[in-house]
Amino acid sequence: MSRVYNFSAGPAVLPEQVLKEAAVEMLDYQGSGMSIMEMSHRSDIIEGMMAEAERDLRDLLNIPANYKVLFLQGGASQQFAAVPMNLMKNRVADYLNTGQWSKKALQEGRLYGKINVIASSEDQNYSYIPGLKNLKVSEEADYVYLCHNNTIFGTRFTELPDVGEKPLVADMSSDFLAGPIDVGRFGLIFAGAQKNVGPAGVVIVIIREDLIADNVLPGTPTMLKYKTHAAHNSAYNTPPVYGIYICGKVFKWLKKIGGLEVMQEINELKASLLYDYLDDSRLFKGTVVKRDRSLMNVPFVTGDADLDAKFIKEGEARGLVNLKGYRTIGGMRASIYNAMPLAGVKALVAFMKEFEGKEA
Amino acid sequence: MSRVYNFSAGPAVLPEQVLKEAAVEMLDYQGSGMSIMEMSHRSDIIEGMMAEAERDLRDLLNIPANYKVLFLQGGASQQFAAVPMNLMKNRVADYLNTGQWSKKALQEGRLYGKINVIASSEDQNYSYIPGLKNLKVSEEADYVYLCHNNTIFGTRFTELPDVGEKPLVADMSSDFLAGPIDVGRFGLIFAGAQKNVGPAGVVIVIIREDLIADNVLPGTPTMLKYKTHAAHNSAYNTPPVYGIYICGKVFKWLKKIGGLEVMQEINELKASLLYDYLDDSRLFKGTVVKRDRSLMNVPFVTGDADLDAKFIKEGEARGLVNLKGYRTIGGMRASIYNAMPLAGVKALVAFMKEFEGKEA
Repeated sequence: MSRVYNFSAGPAVLPEQVLKEAAVEMLDYQGSGMSIMEMSHRSDIIEGMMAEAERDLRDLLNIPANYKVLFLQGGASQQFAAVPMNLMKNRVADYLNTGQWSKKALQEGRLYGKINVIASSEDQNYSYIPGLKNLKVSEEADYVYLCHNNTIFGTRFTELPDVGEKPLVADMSSDFLAGPIDVGRFGLIFAGAQKNVGPAGVVIVIIREDLIADNVLPGTPTMLKYKTHAAHNSAYNTPPVYGIYICGKVFKWLKKIGGLEVMQEINELKASLLYDYLDDSRLFKGTVVKRDRSLMNVPFVTGDADLDAKFIKEGEARGLVNLKGYRTIGGMRASIYNAMPLAGVKALVAFMKEFEGKEA
Repeated sequence: MSRVYNFSAGPAVLPEQVLKEAAVEMLDYQGSGMSIMEMSHRSDIIEGMMAEAERDLRDLLNIPANYKVLFLQGGASQQFAAVPMNLMKNRVADYLNTGQWSKKALQEGRLYGKINVIASSEDQNYSYIPGLKNLKVSEEADYVYLCHNNTIFGTRFTELPDVGEKPLVADMSSDFLAGPIDVGRFGLIFAGAQKNVGPAGVVIVIIREDLIADNVLPGTPTMLKYKTHAAHNSAYNTPPVYGIYICGKVFKWLKKIGGLEVMQEINELKASLLYDYLDDSRLFKGTVVKRDRSLMNVPFVTGDADLDAKFIKEGEARGLVNLKGYRTIGGMRASIYNAMPLAGVKALVAFMKEFEGKEA
């Protein structure tokens, strides 16, 4: 079979060029006679590869010098614990609850201290982002937490809350590198790689140096201390080398495209193709408040579960795969991450029009 | 360059056949039109792949039905915390200190309770395994811990301590699947994949079901609870899919060879070739008490650091790479894991003889 258009929410589509290079290099990386999987993480080649991946990421995001970049394991879910264990000096934190992942994060936070939910869109099934104007940050909060893009519900923050001097912590798993961000606005950013950056098994953490503390909560595992990894360039123990290598190739691919400004333009173009059609359609409709629509994850429904199922099945037969909505939500969801080509979105919209012509 | 003989202690050599298959399948796994890296961990293909990997591992090790197999992240180092956090009801455990990794594990254990070191070979730079006859297991110990094969020092346990009803916990990172083991003797086994099984970023845990508890230590992150992963077939969050896929291929390769009995015979043959030569050599000598020699990691020295360096350099020029000893030990170390072909060990011994003829 030829390559399909893969709308999976994650693990998700990767740039074909990256996969091609990985295949070619599998048995012999850079003339070493070894696979990159077979090399010591203390070897010059791997240290060089990891340093280059970090440099490229710093270039892409314009990361200030007082931030460390860490390549860790355990996914975003493990960061849900690592963040409070490292940052919760007063045992208090403020969370914005805008979807399933922020909810999981705040529940995990409750293992370690008092969590104030200072904004929530749970009342309307997370179909919008709460207004930020009158947000009240708690005086004693150690940090303020949000999930930047909500993979399941298809919403995103288009502006950031004013948190004063408090560190803002953001889970960016599903829109990391979708466009430029001002890293200086954040105390800590983390992102599971498997949505927009690479394979599962790598989580990237960008942390302001003053937040890397020795006095973490009692009982914090050495492996969950940011200081452990910051002090050893992410190689305190064996890092997930192969995953970092793929991420590094994706960073190169992004630089070649022209960087994150260009990537964002492409993402806006792709998303608008789909949203414009959804706004006009008599059959399909989006499920999210217009203002807060994600550029990465586009949920939509017909309103008829049988018709949804038919659409998903017929799409699959044409190589438009993984359009099924999240298991607790139903309907459809098209995840159109960086690596989804414009042609894939065009093919999806063309198919939706055709389906609408037949069924509406 | 053609493939070299790679004696790295880890990440380490993988079967060439496994890498070839992975390269071929990179852009299109089983006619799906996607890379296995691009697929949802909730898809039938990935669930099937993971279930098959588990089945093959169960077959190879003859794992009893009352044990769970988990594919996790964070390496052995993270297990150093997970083990006490999950098992330390009385906040007491007994450790056998036979090398750097058991020492790190017991130091981590001290974050959570009282650690009794009931045997140690630290007095002789870990060059032997302490006698087990008069071992005194503490009455209140929640478990007894050992490191089955000591990668850095080249020793291994050839028999197991009698721990009565206490759960025996073993770090098998560097000899997992090197030969058959009686899983029933252990409460918990863990192994970082990157030495004998697959790429870095996967740690395999085999745990007896009665040890999978809900009442873990307060503050245990959800991601460090064995129960979390056992209840979700290692897919509570996104598992390290690509690494598990490679491990699965290594399991198939082992089954094709004839299983772990055959693998052990090959490993014994490879090791004896090298040890027999070391015992006869006028130039090189092994650093470990004969009885406790590892089948996987063979440290040796000439006694002259300059000569060691020369040997390592000349070996490299002939495609015998990563023979340098551990950074704090010096000398040489040949790691001859499952995937090191017999021809590689023969080539090494031939080169050592030649070098000895020139230099001794």
